[in-house]
Amino acid sequence: MTVTSPKGFLSAGISCGLKKSGKPDLSLIYSETPAVAAGVFTTNQVKGNPVLVSRINLKDGIAQAIISNAGNANTWTGKKGLDDAWKMAELTADALKIPKSYVLVTSTGVIAKPMPMSKIKKGISKISKMLSKDGGHDSARAIMTTDTRPKEISVKVGGITIGGIAKGSGMIEPGMCTMHAFITTDAVIDRRLLQNILQEAVNKSFNLVSVDNCMSTSDCVFALANGMSGVEVEGELVKKFAAAFEKVCIYLAKEIARDGEGATKLMEVEVVRAKDSDDAKKVAKAVIGNFLLKAAVYGKDKNVGRILQAVGSTSAKVNWGEFNFDWKIGKREDKILVDLAAGKSSATAWGCDLTEGYVRINARYHT
Amino acid sequence: MTVTSPKGFLSAGISCGLKKSGKPDLSLIYSETPAVAAGVFTTNQVKGNPVLVSRINLKDGIAQAIISNAGNANTWTGKKGLDDAWKMAELTADALKIPKSYVLVTSTGVIAKPMPMSKIKKGISKISKMLSKDGGHDSARAIMTTDTRPKEISVKVGGITIGGIAKGSGMIEPGMCTMHAFITTDAVIDRRLLQNILQEAVNKSFNLVSVDNCMSTSDCVFALANGMSGVEVEGELVKKFAAAFEKVCIYLAKEIARDGEGATKLMEVEVVRAKDSDDAKKVAKAVIGNFLLKAAVYGKDKNVGRILQAVGSTSAKVNWGEFNFDWKIGKREDKILVDLAAGKSSATAWGCDLTEGYVRINARYHT
Repeated sequence: MTVTSPKGFLSAGISCGLKKSGKPDLSLIYSETPAVAAGVFTTNQVKGNPVLVSRINLKDGIAQAIISNAGNANTWTGKKGLDDAWKMAELTADALKIPKSYVLVTSTGVIAKPMPMSKIKKGISKISKMLSKDGGHDSARAIMTTDTRPKEISVKVGGITIGGIAKGSGMIEPGMCTMHAFITTDAVIDRRLLQNILQEAVNKSFNLVSVDNCMSTSDCVFALANGMSGVEVEGELVKKFAAAFEKVCIYLAKEIARDGEGATKLMEVEVVRAKDSDDAKKVAKAVIGNFLLKAAVYGKDKNVGRILQAVGSTSAKVNWGEFNFDWKIGKREDKILVDLAAGKSSATAWGCDLTEGYVRINARYHT
Repeated sequence: MTVTSPKGFLSAGISCGLKKSGKPDLSLIYSETPAVAAGVFTTNQVKGNPVLVSRINLKDGIAQAIISNAGNANTWTGKKGLDDAWKMAELTADALKIPKSYVLVTSTGVIAKPMPMSKIKKGISKISKMLSKDGGHDSARAIMTTDTRPKEISVKVGGITIGGIAKGSGMIEPGMCTMHAFITTDAVIDRRLLQNILQEAVNKSFNLVSVDNCMSTSDCVFALANGMSGVEVEGELVKKFAAAFEKVCIYLAKEIARDGEGATKLMEVEVVRAKDSDDAKKVAKAVIGNFLLKAAVYGKDKNVGRILQAVGSTSAKVNWGEFNFDWKIGKREDKILVDLAAGKSSATAWGCDLTEGYVRINARYHT
C-alpha cells in the first residue's frame, strides 16, 4: 500500500548523513520504464533550487526517477545551490543509466545552508543499488522532517494501481512548512490528461490543507504513470481513474493535516450551498485557518462566535437569515459543517488544532 | 493623559455586573457640547447590533456621548438584540438629556447571549451621575476585556488637545478579537476633514495591527471634536493636527499589539522601498501575521527562512537580487526591517509574538 504498489516501480530510503539524528534522509523512486509525468509546484515567489530543476525536467512530460532528500532544502543558496540541484539529477541519472532530464529532484530541511554534496554523492551511489519492490515504506520514512509518521496509500481501479507517499506537518528544520507528495501509477495515460487530473486533485486536496497558513518554498506534487498495467485511461475509465487519483491525494492531504505540528486532532470543514466553487473554497480555507477556531478545537469548545467571525471576514455571499452550522467533536477528528444557504457549490478543507506543542516546536528551534 | 484631557469632555467607568469578576464593565464618555463626530467600523459581514446603531447615529456627523460595555457583545442576538442596542442609546440620551441620535453605542464580550438589560439600565442611570474630568482612567479600564492594562494617551498641538483610550488584545470572552478606540479633541474641525483624518490615521495604525489575523464583528473607532478649544483646524494646522491625531492612533495601536493575548513582546515590521503603498502594506501585514515568524520572535531566533517564506507568499513586487532585511531583537520589542528594493513606498505594521499563553487563553475558555 505505497508508492511501489503499481507495477514497475521500485524504491529505497536510506540515511546519508544529512539529519543529525541519523534518521533516513534520502529517498529514490524509480520506474522500470520512462513514465508520463506531471507536477504541481509552490506558488511562493521564493523557490527552492530543486523546484527550478524539476520544473525544467518536467517540461518534456517524461520522468523515470525522483530523488528526494530531507535535512537541507537547498533554498536561498545562490548559483552554487542551483548547480548542486542539477548535480543531484546528474548523479542519479548516471547511477541509473537514464537521461538527466528524466530525474526529478526535491529537497526539504534547513534553508540558506550549502548542500553537503559529498554526502549526497555517496548517498546516491548507495541508494541506487538498493532499489526494490519493498522499498516504498523506507522511501516514505526518508522524506519525513517534523512528521511523526510516514504517509502512504495505494488504491486499485479497473486493473490500474495508484500509489502515493507524502510528507509535511508544518515547518521544517529552521525553514518553513513544506509538503511533498509523490504519486505513481501503472496506468497508460496521456500526458495532458494526467496533468489535468493531477491539478484538479491537488486543488481538492493539498490546496485545501492548512496547518499554519504558511506557504512553503519547496512544495511539490509529482505524478508518474509508467503504463505497465497495459490499461489505458480512456472513455468511461477517465472518471473512475480521476476519482481514485483524487482519493489518493485526499487521503495523503488529510494525513498531513492530522500530523500537523503539535496537533492532537484533524479538523475537517465542509462548506455547502455556496454561491460558487470559489466562495466555497474561500470560506473553507478561512475557517480551517482561523487561529481562534483552531484553539477552540483544541479546547473542545463549540463556539458559534469563532465560526461567525471567520465566515463573516470573507467576501463570500452568505444568506445570513438561513446561515447554519454544525460542529461534531470527535476523539481524533472535529467535523464542522457550514451552510451558507446561498447556492449549490461545496468544498472541504482540512487542518488541525492549534496547541502549545505547535508553539514549542517552532519557538524552541534555534538556527 | 486620557480621553478627558481635551476641554469639555467628562467620563466615568463603573461595574454594572456584566463581568462575573465584578471588574468595571460600563464606560461613558460625554462632551459638554454636541461634537463633530467620525467613525470607522469593522468590515466583517457579521456586525454587532451596537455597530448597526452607531453607524446610523453617526450619519448626521454629530455625537455627544459614547456608551460602551464589556462582558456582552450584543452580537448574533437577533431583533431583540438590535432593540436592546437602541435602548442603550435611549437610556443614555434620557439620562444626559440629549437627543438619542447623539449617542454612540459599543459592546464587547460574549456573543449570541441576550444583553442583561436590567443591569444595563441600572448601570446607565448610575454612571450618568458620575461623569467627571478625572473619569477617563476609569473609562479606559471599563472597556477592557482580556486586556491586561488600560491604554490611554493625550497629545497637544497648537492649542488643541487630542486624547484617546483603546481596548483590544485578541479575542474576548467566548467571542472574537475586538478592538475599540475612542478619540476626543477640543478642536474646531469640519466634519468631513475629521472623517478623512480619522480614516487615514486608522489605515496607518489600527488597520496595521494583527494579534491573530482575526477580524472582529465589533471593531470600531470613534472621534469626537467638540470645538471647545476655540482653535480651528485649517491652513497650516491641518497637517500638524493630522500628524498628532495619527500619533495618538499609532500609540494606541501599538499598545493593543503589545498587550496581545499571551504576548511577551511587541513586533514591529517596517517595509521599505516597496513598489507602492499597497505592496508595502501587503508585505508588512503578511510578515506581522505569519505564525512561524511570530513563534520565532517568541523563541528569539532570527530566522531568514521565515522572512523569505512570508514575503515570497505575497504578490508584492520584490527585487530579489537586492532584497534585504534586518532583525533587531530587543527585550520588549523586536524590530524587523524588510527592504524590497522595488520602489519608494513604505509601511509599518505591529503585532506580537505567538506563545503557549495565547493557545492556553483561547483553548481553555469554555462557552
